[in-house]
Amino acid sequence: MKKIINDPGNVVSEALIGFAAAHRDLVRVNFGPDYIVRADAPVSGKVAVVSGGGSGHEPLHGGFVGAGMLDAAVPGPVFTSPTPDAVLAATQAADGGSGVLHIVKNYTGDVLNFETAAELADAEGINVSAVVINDDVAVEDSTYTAGRRGVGGTVPLEKITGAAAARGDDLAAVTAIAQRVIGSVRSMGVALTPCIVPHSGEPSFVLSDDEIEMGIGIHGEPGRHRIPMEPADTLVADLLAPVVEDLPFERGDRALLMVNGMGGTPLLELYLAFGIAAGLLEKQGIEVSRSLVGNYITSLEMQGMSVTLLRLDDELTQLWDAPVHTAALRWGM
Amino acid sequence: MKKIINDPGNVVSEALIGFAAAHRDLVRVNFGPDYIVRADAPVSGKVAVVSGGGSGHEPLHGGFVGAGMLDAAVPGPVFTSPTPDAVLAATQAADGGSGVLHIVKNYTGDVLNFETAAELADAEGINVSAVVINDDVAVEDSTYTAGRRGVGGTVPLEKITGAAAARGDDLAAVTAIAQRVIGSVRSMGVALTPCIVPHSGEPSFVLSDDEIEMGIGIHGEPGRHRIPMEPADTLVADLLAPVVEDLPFERGDRALLMVNGMGGTPLLELYLAFGIAAGLLEKQGIEVSRSLVGNYITSLEMQGMSVTLLRLDDELTQLWDAPVHTAALRWGM
Repeated sequence: MKKIINDPGNVVSEALIGFAAAHRDLVRVNFGPDYIVRADAPVSGKVAVVSGGGSGHEPLHGGFVGAGMLDAAVPGPVFTSPTPDAVLAATQAADGGSGVLHIVKNYTGDVLNFETAAELADAEGINVSAVVINDDVAVEDSTYTAGRRGVGGTVPLEKITGAAAARGDDLAAVTAIAQRVIGSVRSMGVALTPCIVPHSGEPSFVLSDDEIEMGIGIHGEPGRHRIPMEPADTLVADLLAPVVEDLPFERGDRALLMVNGMGGTPLLELYLAFGIAAGLLEKQGIEVSRSLVGNYITSLEMQGMSVTLLRLDDELTQLWDAPVHTAALRWGM
Repeated sequence: MKKIINDPGNVVSEALIGFAAAHRDLVRVNFGPDYIVRADAPVSGKVAVVSGGGSGHEPLHGGFVGAGMLDAAVPGPVFTSPTPDAVLAATQAADGGSGVLHIVKNYTGDVLNFETAAELADAEGINVSAVVINDDVAVEDSTYTAGRRGVGGTVPLEKITGAAAARGDDLAAVTAIAQRVIGSVRSMGVALTPCIVPHSGEPSFVLSDDEIEMGIGIHGEPGRHRIPMEPADTLVADLLAPVVEDLPFERGDRALLMVNGMGGTPLLELYLAFGIAAGLLEKQGIEVSRSLVGNYITSLEMQGMSVTLLRLDDELTQLWDAPVHTAALRWGM
């Protein structure tokens, strides 16, 4: 294992030190419990949007803390849920008096720990609402999940929900927007290689030189099946079809198409895949009206990609386009 | 070799199709010869800034085309210089009547082909000026280079030069700003793994499981030496020291610190490295007043990183902060 780290046990806290140093204008980082909040938190009178989960998926979630997106993010150890007390502390730090929305990816540990934190916050008089994102069409249940996993859809969910909070929606309205995104977004991923979690030092699974895993989870959990490597045209079609069929997306729909790298895939390949996916959608009469290409929800250095499709209406488009200023997603300010 | 591609010979053109589809609002892509220009090019009365070079370093250069940065970029085949006719065509498409600055990374093929293109453009009455960036302190001459290589410093160079052109500087003034950046920026990189060029299908070099290459070039060209893997604290110190000593950077300097991933390194590790580098600079009395962390000049899926340090004054800081709207770097608009 070759990684740019010191003690494998300190990877997350040392990375947070660097994150804080690089983005002093944008965020404050608290250590013990670890969380990241907007530099100007709490924003009085605004609904706060808080997310979190295991580390190793950067820039998710800390890279999305800032004006127009998340008020706070809670990074657990690599691929491990943050504790309820860390989620509670972030919730308290973010609360501006108008309530807090928790955005939770559907993994058993995350769901439980955010629920506990919400109860604790509630006991302190903080009004907490929660949504669970489960956009991965690949499998029904998996290693860490009852029901579908939360994957790439988390990124537009956090952006759009953050924009609704920024425009002044109340907690019920922000929650409703989040539910609308969750109801309209689907994803699927593929792994070409495994990744190595620092404290284990071993690959999470093994693929042969010509084998890929379709429907991979963001922690390397098993997907649908292993198949021989395919040309990009076939591979992208095989990823996209279940995504389109599931909602289903239909002729005349407008959509945000996100092609996301798992951390170790060259941008050249992601753009190549985006072109194929956009071409296939055009043939099906689905208009790609917004796009996002790059590494946004990753699995450390895993090679592979995921495709996310979000059906847009005028309001969701407006919220997607609204100004945002975070480490990883920024426009309009 | 597992890559998300079809025919290895078509990787660049297929990726350009995707890039054009993803960024229709921002750029136009021309095929045969291949180049990318701002959607609103040429911008009448503005000096145009044009760069280019072999592909495989994405988002460099195409990801930096847009308002406030490059007017055009010319992508050659992977790790291969673009031809003079492609550079000429991009120069013509970008020229708004106030002249064109070529930003050239110091590789023999790039330097020759941009020179030829400049002569051809001159013969057509386009006023062309050129600068050559050579910020890599690792080695003097190397596989494709007489003199030092152009690496990470290219990113702030293109940003700051583009901002000077955007504020209305004439060709001589834009060229002078570019020269000032080149005189103030130094870099060095390290590889943990090689990368595989699609048309060869083989790693460009071989490192053992515990070996790294200090001073690596962005095409996998040899650096200073191979050493056993080090803890991040040592590794970052070993990369940073030659960078600081070379200019030299001195107590009281303000600087932009860029920690750049080579394409396959988790963001978690890049932030961890940034924190170490920022701490070391603080101890030396060098103020990190601006920062950039992420994959900006890559070597396909290579694991590794580079450290770039640019000495800033008030004017360069202002130009760095000026609004920019490109696929890979965006703020203020």
